[in-house]
Amino acid sequence: MSEQFQLIPGNSLKTNSPEDGRALAVKIARLTIKITQPDAKTREKLRPVYANDASMLIAIGQTVAMEFATIAKANNYWK
Amino acid sequence: MSEQFQLIPGNSLKTNSPEDGRALAVKIARLTIKITQPDAKTREKLRPVYANDASMLIAIGQTVAMEFATIAKANNYWK
Amino acid sequence: MSEQFQLIPGNSLKTNSPEDGRALAVKIARLTIKITQPDAKTREKLRPVYANDASMLIAIGQTVAMEFATIAKANNYWK
Amino acid sequence: MSEQFQLIPGNSLKTNSPEDGRALAVKIARLTIKITQPDAKTREKLRPVYANDASMLIAIGQTVAMEFATIAKANNYWK
Amino acid sequence: MSEQFQLIPGNSLKTNSPEDGRALAVKIARLTIKITQPDAKTREKLRPVYANDASMLIAIGQTVAMEFATIAKANNYWK
Amino acid sequence: MSEQFQLIPGNSLKTNSPEDGRALAVKIARLTIKITQPDAKTREKLRPVYANDASMLIAIGQTVAMEFATIAKANNYWK
Repeated sequence: MSEQFQLIPGNSLKTNSPEDGRALAVKIARLTIKITQPDAKTREKLRPVYANDASMLIAIGQTVAMEFATIAKANNYWK
Repeated sequence: MSEQFQLIPGNSLKTNSPEDGRALAVKIARLTIKITQPDAKTREKLRPVYANDASMLIAIGQTVAMEFATIAKANNYWK
Repeated sequence: MSEQFQLIPGNSLKTNSPEDGRALAVKIARLTIKITQPDAKTREKLRPVYANDASMLIAIGQTVAMEFATIAKANNYWK
Repeated sequence: MSEQFQLIPGNSLKTNSPEDGRALAVKIARLTIKITQPDAKTREKLRPVYANDASMLIAIGQTVAMEFATIAKANNYWK
Repeated sequence: MSEQFQLIPGNSLKTNSPEDGRALAVKIARLTIKITQPDAKTREKLRPVYANDASMLIAIGQTVAMEFATIAKANNYWK
Repeated sequence: MSEQFQLIPGNSLKTNSPEDGRALAVKIARLTIKITQPDAKTREKLRPVYANDASMLIAIGQTVAMEFATIAKANNYWK
């Protein structure tokens, strides 16, 4: 029941579909934040900061786009 | 009639043309914002912020460029 | 005489030369701005903002570089 | 016992798994900071600055995403 | 004697060496600025702004890195 | 004894190892700054600015990551 991997859930880039691959991209992006700022309270405090800032929401979108590019390639674009 | 996929419309990166691929890039970029800030009212409030800010419009353009790079590759550049 | 495609002019990434490919990259980058801020008057008002700001000019250059990377690849680098 | 390589731990991009590859991406990103700001005290002082700033945490996430793209490719996506 | 191409000097991505390819990357990056801000006087005025700003110098470096990635690939890395 | 190349040391992207490739990435990134701001005194003055700014250190890390992606590919990831 424990989370064994800190950075890549399931320790794999393989997913069944683009939707799942995108969800993985979102998770991986969040886990990088978590390892950089391990304190849950601080992260909780920062969440409304970026969720209400147009500029940061865009930057998060760019991060997810980058992670997804790698995951999509790893899955040969689910062709 | 319901939208079944939250992150990748149609759960596929395959499109018929560059124009459709670009439209998909725009949609995917928006859906990442949506999952990060799920409150529709807040998103509505932020829209005029970025739509009237030259710097944020450019940043959105960069996000779409990144998503499109992945989609174009997934479609072998519609050759 | 009407512009049929909103996002990718000619609905193709194929161009005859690097120069044409670069021009396409510039156009595609502008069309993303246009779809995000559809009001022509607002865009007109924002133009001098970014055209006179060193930092935004650089960011536009990065956007064009990203679009061009995709177009160049789609054309196999015009080899 | 000494650290022989300053920029790429183990002088290799090869890792056993995505999780290890991601950890390497994080380390490489940190080592670039270290070579640019070699003074440990200054780095120590800057740590709380970025760890408590939503915008910088996102930027760090983008850096790790970039490093990971290269490492993932070097490992053929651990297929 | 006239400059015939506005965006890609020589209308080609092919260069004889990495050094020449890098010089081309720098030129292409500048030409994008030129087409976005066609007024020479304004560009002249903006030059000291970015050349004396650490943050903008870094952003220019990122732009050149992006252009170079495309040119290097077009030349098969001069292997 | 003279430095013959201004932008790519040794006029080659080929290196013996990932560590050397990373060092080359750092050098290339610095040489782009040098050509954009050729005055050594100004660069000297800007150094403490970015070396003490968390945000700029991260941006430098992103630049090095981009250059390294190209160099790593040019060396087939030192496989």
